[in-house]
Amino acid sequence: MLELRLVQGSLLKKVLEAIKDLVTDANFDCSGTGFSLQAMDSSHVALVALLLRSEGFEHYRCDRNLSMGMNLGNMAKMLRCAGNDDIITIKADDGSDTVTFMFESPNQDKIADFEMKLMDIDSEHLGIPDSEYQAIVRMPSSEFSRICKDLSSIGDTVIISVTKEGVKFSTAGDIGTANIVCRQNKTVDKLEESTIIEMQEPVSLTFALRYMNSFTKASPLSDQVTISLSSELPVVVEYKIGEMGYIRFYLAPKIEEDEEMKA
Amino acid sequence: MLELRLVQGSLLKKVLEAIKDLVTDANFDCSGTGFSLQAMDSSHVALVALLLRSEGFEHYRCDRNLSMGMNLGNMAKMLRCAGNDDIITIKADDGSDTVTFMFESPNQDKIADFEMKLMDIDSEHLGIPDSEYQAIVRMPSSEFSRICKDLSSIGDTVIISVTKEGVKFSTAGDIGTANIVCRQNKTVDKLEESTIIEMQEPVSLTFALRYMNSFTKASPLSDQVTISLSSELPVVVEYKIGEMGYIRFYLAPKIEEDEEMKA
Amino acid sequence: MLELRLVQGSLLKKVLEAIKDLVTDANFDCSGTGFSLQAMDSSHVALVALLLRSEGFEHYRCDRNLSMGMNLGNMAKMLRCAGNDDIITIKADDGSDTVTFMFESPNQDKIADFEMKLMDIDSEHLGIPDSEYQAIVRMPSSEFSRICKDLSSIGDTVIISVTKEGVKFSTAGDIGTANIVCRQNKTVDKLEESTIIEMQEPVSLTFALRYMNSFTKASPLSDQVTISLSSELPVVVEYKIGEMGYIRFYLAPKIEEDEEMKA
Repeated sequence: MLELRLVQGSLLKKVLEAIKDLVTDANFDCSGTGFSLQAMDSSHVALVALLLRSEGFEHYRCDRNLSMGMNLGNMAKMLRCAGNDDIITIKADDGSDTVTFMFESPNQDKIADFEMKLMDIDSEHLGIPDSEYQAIVRMPSSEFSRICKDLSSIGDTVIISVTKEGVKFSTAGDIGTANIVCRQNKTVDKLEESTIIEMQEPVSLTFALRYMNSFTKASPLSDQVTISLSSELPVVVEYKIGEMGYIRFYLAPKIEEDEEMKA
Repeated sequence: MLELRLVQGSLLKKVLEAIKDLVTDANFDCSGTGFSLQAMDSSHVALVALLLRSEGFEHYRCDRNLSMGMNLGNMAKMLRCAGNDDIITIKADDGSDTVTFMFESPNQDKIADFEMKLMDIDSEHLGIPDSEYQAIVRMPSSEFSRICKDLSSIGDTVIISVTKEGVKFSTAGDIGTANIVCRQNKTVDKLEESTIIEMQEPVSLTFALRYMNSFTKASPLSDQVTISLSSELPVVVEYKIGEMGYIRFYLAPKIEEDEEMKA
Repeated sequence: MLELRLVQGSLLKKVLEAIKDLVTDANFDCSGTGFSLQAMDSSHVALVALLLRSEGFEHYRCDRNLSMGMNLGNMAKMLRCAGNDDIITIKADDGSDTVTFMFESPNQDKIADFEMKLMDIDSEHLGIPDSEYQAIVRMPSSEFSRICKDLSSIGDTVIISVTKEGVKFSTAGDIGTANIVCRQNKTVDKLEESTIIEMQEPVSLTFALRYMNSFTKASPLSDQVTISLSSELPVVVEYKIGEMGYIRFYLAPKIEEDEEMKA
């Protein structure tokens, strides 16, 4: 039996809004560690990894490891029916082919049960090794989101270049070019407005803006985003989920125009 | 001659927004009692009854009973041109084939006259007898609206079941099922947030969500909605219009799947 | 070399939003006087004249007169990437076929450079003589915008009639007619809410609402709009741009139904 009670139910609502356009169907894995998901986007280019640690739930009962296949669009539809202040409980009986989402309003006047059919989804769990990155940028998530959106009005790809002084986002398209530089800034009054760069060596990588824009749908989850870059590795765009976990997006850099053509 | 001056003109604006999608053309009836309307929706399934009592108008002159056929879409277009704080006066000369809506801004700096052609509309006025209902639910109109909208993302019909403890709204669809229970709650600080159930006997009836959603467009008129249910009768969904009247929607319950099929 | 630094960059953003739908491509003219534009709309019916005086810029360097052809849609796309509090600098090297827009965030943490290709645009500069007008109406720009929008839901043209008492906006269409009268009002507490009429003689002219609605997109630039009317002249709809200039729209009145038909 599975029963996971999340007092801050809005976190789960935001998680679904963040990933439902990128991933159609996915397995949620429940274990003693927590509630997690790993899935490729539908075009098999980007990878999403989600973790909500068991300690973050008010009540976390998971008698045995369970993998529940869900259509994320349908799950998002149901979670949208939860109020922003509602407590959300995820429930599943052993061997059942359904999962139940229970929404309780703060004053307990309104209780909703939404039951959804589970799916069988083939998936292989990729091991993602911990890596050293040449540069790690931590910046306001709203700023990163705005930059990706702005550059999309000019071009299709973004070159992210990190130096000690700052991070530069560049693009080019039919109507012209754009460069946006954000300087390192540790001395702001509010920590969430800071831009902090940890750099081993300068790095410059190119990515599809379409995916970056998709990742930024997780911005409501966290004031800050962390972007980890290395020439040999997929970029990691990470949003913390309160104290209880994270959502991480992985995307391989574009190598060269020629190689893109072939792909 | 007809001249009806409504200081809180926004009420009339909200009435039109509430019914214009449900009813295309309708006769407004003016008498000494008030300004009223009774009309079926275009598919002849739901009935709307509106009453604005003469006492609610600052000035109410209606020399003889008058029935004015109006296209509600066009009327709504004109009323949308009134400011929310405007005083609205409805004027018609005897025997005229037009009606005039006059909008006065609060400081009298702006005066607008909108003249609309009247239509000849055949209609029969149904007598609606006062009935005893098995259960009457009074609840926040925003809550009822939210529930109908939420359930629509899952299914097409709603089963409304009333017991002494509360009212349950249920639906089922391809992606799963949903049950939302609102408990009776008389002890909230604000009367408009209360949910109060007067029950003679338990009742459970099924309705098309499409119509329920349409009725909830009247929510801006009132903080509370009253839902009156009996197995043998159409449900009545009523919104009070300030102290001066009401808008009531009537909808027959769905009987059985088989009968629906035949219909 | 050209370098124009505008501390209140939002003004330039608003200017582009005001004219980009009316004018596709246009030459911006830079001289010692200021940064200006004069262009016909794409159907050659309305004329736009813009002036941003050099004194309004924090820094204004324009070594020689320069005419820069720009696609206003693309320019608007780039300016939308500037924050509302950003300082905007327009830069161009002598003989270059590009222009650069630089956006600096207030705390200098974010610097963006957007470079756009210039175009060759044929244009003749019309001399617009200063004229005497029969009537000049100054009124809140939001009120004028609301009236044009409201009348558009009824008809296609607006008759603007000015008398000493006020200004009347009228239209007629299939569903009826509308008249909106705004009275002169000099005694309001806030100057921006006043309606002031300077009249030599009464005047009544007819205009296409489509263009009037387009002009009102400049409303965010100024609380007040000035409408100058004479029977023999195009109407002038003017919005001041802070203390530094203006945007003026010129539109010829419609003469007679028959002549319109022939046109």
